[in-house]
Amino acid sequence: MNNIYDVVIIGGSAAGIVAATTGKCCYPDKSFLMIRKEKDALVPCGIPYVFGFLGTTEKNIIPLEPIKKAGIDFLQDEVTKIDRKNKIIFTKSEKEFRYEKLILATGSKPYVPDIKGNDLENVFTVPKNKEYLDNMLEKLKNLNKIVVIGAGFIGVEVSEQLAHIGKEITIIEILPHILGKAFDSNIASLAQKELEKLGIKVLTNTKVLEITGNKKVDGIVLENGKILSTDAVIFATGYQPNSELAKSAGLELNKYNAIRVDSYMRTNDPDIFAIGDCAQKVDFITRKSVPIMLASTATSEARIAGTNLYRLSTVRSFLGTIAIFSTKIGGKVFASAGLTEEEAQKNNFDVKTGYFEGIDKHPGSLPNANKQIVKLIVSKESDVIIGGEIVGGDTVGELINVVGMAIQNNVSITELFISQIGTHPLLTSAPTAYPLIKAAQNVFISK
Amino acid sequence: MNNIYDVVIIGGSAAGIVAATTGKCCYPDKSFLMIRKEKDALVPCGIPYVFGFLGTTEKNIIPLEPIKKAGIDFLQDEVTKIDRKNKIIFTKSEKEFRYEKLILATGSKPYVPDIKGNDLENVFTVPKNKEYLDNMLEKLKNLNKIVVIGAGFIGVEVSEQLAHIGKEITIIEILPHILGKAFDSNIASLAQKELEKLGIKVLTNTKVLEITGNKKVDGIVLENGKILSTDAVIFATGYQPNSELAKSAGLELNKYNAIRVDSYMRTNDPDIFAIGDCAQKVDFITRKSVPIMLASTATSEARIAGTNLYRLSTVRSFLGTIAIFSTKIGGKVFASAGLTEEEAQKNNFDVKTGYFEGIDKHPGSLPNANKQIVKLIVSKESDVIIGGEIVGGDTVGELINVVGMAIQNNVSITELFISQIGTHPLLTSAPTAYPLIKAAQNVFISK
Repeated sequence: MNNIYDVVIIGGSAAGIVAATTGKCCYPDKSFLMIRKEKDALVPCGIPYVFGFLGTTEKNIIPLEPIKKAGIDFLQDEVTKIDRKNKIIFTKSEKEFRYEKLILATGSKPYVPDIKGNDLENVFTVPKNKEYLDNMLEKLKNLNKIVVIGAGFIGVEVSEQLAHIGKEITIIEILPHILGKAFDSNIASLAQKELEKLGIKVLTNTKVLEITGNKKVDGIVLENGKILSTDAVIFATGYQPNSELAKSAGLELNKYNAIRVDSYMRTNDPDIFAIGDCAQKVDFITRKSVPIMLASTATSEARIAGTNLYRLSTVRSFLGTIAIFSTKIGGKVFASAGLTEEEAQKNNFDVKTGYFEGIDKHPGSLPNANKQIVKLIVSKESDVIIGGEIVGGDTVGELINVVGMAIQNNVSITELFISQIGTHPLLTSAPTAYPLIKAAQNVFISK
Repeated sequence: MNNIYDVVIIGGSAAGIVAATTGKCCYPDKSFLMIRKEKDALVPCGIPYVFGFLGTTEKNIIPLEPIKKAGIDFLQDEVTKIDRKNKIIFTKSEKEFRYEKLILATGSKPYVPDIKGNDLENVFTVPKNKEYLDNMLEKLKNLNKIVVIGAGFIGVEVSEQLAHIGKEITIIEILPHILGKAFDSNIASLAQKELEKLGIKVLTNTKVLEITGNKKVDGIVLENGKILSTDAVIFATGYQPNSELAKSAGLELNKYNAIRVDSYMRTNDPDIFAIGDCAQKVDFITRKSVPIMLASTATSEARIAGTNLYRLSTVRSFLGTIAIFSTKIGGKVFASAGLTEEEAQKNNFDVKTGYFEGIDKHPGSLPNANKQIVKLIVSKESDVIIGGEIVGGDTVGELINVVGMAIQNNVSITELFISQIGTHPLLTSAPTAYPLIKAAQNVFISK
């Protein structure tokens, strides 16, 4: 292995891999090295499913093949220092590499609130770490009652999967409703119902004061005075950027400790890019910094960093996070893009909304038809779509991308209303009652 | 029933119903009457499924409820004459109605080529007519060997459904490959393979010379000299606009006998609109008149006509047919939007293409993952996406709408490449290998 590279990527999960392969694809004459602490990187959004459907982390590994096939060198090692002046990085195993361009894709780690008892045995987090998760899976085999703290996507998905294998789950959320980043309360309450159908107990508006136990956890104390007995606690209370390396190299961080970047994903050092969970996110609509971490956003940033490494192009710049979420609870899919109505109002957008309930096949007499609900959030001022929430069957996972594409292109509600949609009896709603279009129509009525 | 209405709609399938309900929604103070020849209108794209999955036309009826609920009067009758000067329509049952605005949504009827024997017993077409189809279904019960002439969507879907209930099917196509309007030959050959897996014999590049039989059909003679014995023949050789009423009223038709309309869907009489299969279609990209008939296009036109009845708005005008198709053959979904590569080249577009084969869940170790293929067609000149073809599982039915939304908004391949896509293990491809994005990336490589 050489110790001089044109491009070095630190981190090799979704963002790192895509930046490396995209970069190599655009600049085939440059030499690339990807350095990663972990032997195996896990498919990030697949992690909740190692607790249920997959049953093991072995089935959830991002293949390294594309890196090797692209002619990118790979090293399993930890970078401990960046010397920006001389453009050298240093590793734990005492290697040194010169770089011309550096991409930081160092990811994130679980955030755990400062609650008494959070260090007891059988108190877990959900890190992107194979060894940790293997050990956790082994321990959970003998633990039946589990409290999950935090009802964001990770908390909800881990709960759903653990219920699926027969665990007794209580999920606790401090906010008024679950999945609050993605859904307004009326849609979130449908998701909560699905969790409850699976036997999961959901406590919202509920704060955990303390975790109790003697060495091992045995219960939790809530602010309302109630005490729950439990065999295990899982913190799903968010993630924080792995930005220590960047900070010690003098790169600027924002208030969430994410590495500040411009719309080409460059840090304040123009030869160092940062992408994915470790990098700052600015919301596409509010233009505020937001602590949203999504592999799909990360890979978009990675494509931008990879293509702009040596030649910037203004049409290849990141315009902000749309935050397109989707998940499946039991048999129902919940998805969202852009702002919720509640978030839009908080941010001073004067909005109108459209809502429609339909069915995802036509005629409805076809087998396996699912109810489909669409809610659209539209800026009154501009008529532009700024958010959408959808509930339905499996096809909602791609339908939300139609909404995402509309938001990214500043499509107005009128343009959506008259837009052409492909329909088919076995695959979609009827052309006469396509919920996305009907919801758009209902925005006019609500005017 | 009144005999003076503000708005009269002639025809009550997908287009008529949507124009009526949209119009009433926008102009609630106006009186609306919908006149339809048929007691029951069939869900147009559901018709192939009455031959198999549905088994009966009864399960494929468009409900009239929305019309009644919207306060729109309904009359089952046939309009025989339009007196444009006095703004009166006359019906078969000798009724007369005055109108202020008229919407023609008279649909289409099967086109049958002038082949000897096309009038024999057990030679069928696939009209949007309940009585005809009920009779045809009854007769087909006792007929086993069936030749379907024409391998467009209707021919392919009817064949697939008849094979599903055990019929012995041969499908004959005069062109080099099946589904030629929607797919390039490489993708069409995958669709053909799926038909063949179901036991359907597919003959392309094959012309039918004559249908033989004494009263009842017993065979067909091909141009290559071969003779096939058969119990029945189904013509799926396209549809022609029902435009006789319009023509006799002096409205202009185009070369396909479709009623000429402007982008507000107005005929050459500004108080008469025409929408759906009876109205002219102009391709969104080539700007040529095309004989493409789709319920989804029809409903978009209907929304435009309905909203523009009394007040035109330039942002509510029809910019041309995108032609978003999707279908399912056996377990595989085939979908397309915009131009094929072959059609683009024929029309003098200098194009580049991108192709990617991936999988529609992640990790691929999850159950029920399907292979997903995306082909993108991009104008070299403008970098804008002008077509897409996708093969995969059921979610392709909505994924093609992401491509459709991109085409309608003149999204460039660069914008698609960096766009944010929502992904989820159980619902979509991985963010690192999302075929739509990877195909976009491969367009760059092919440059």
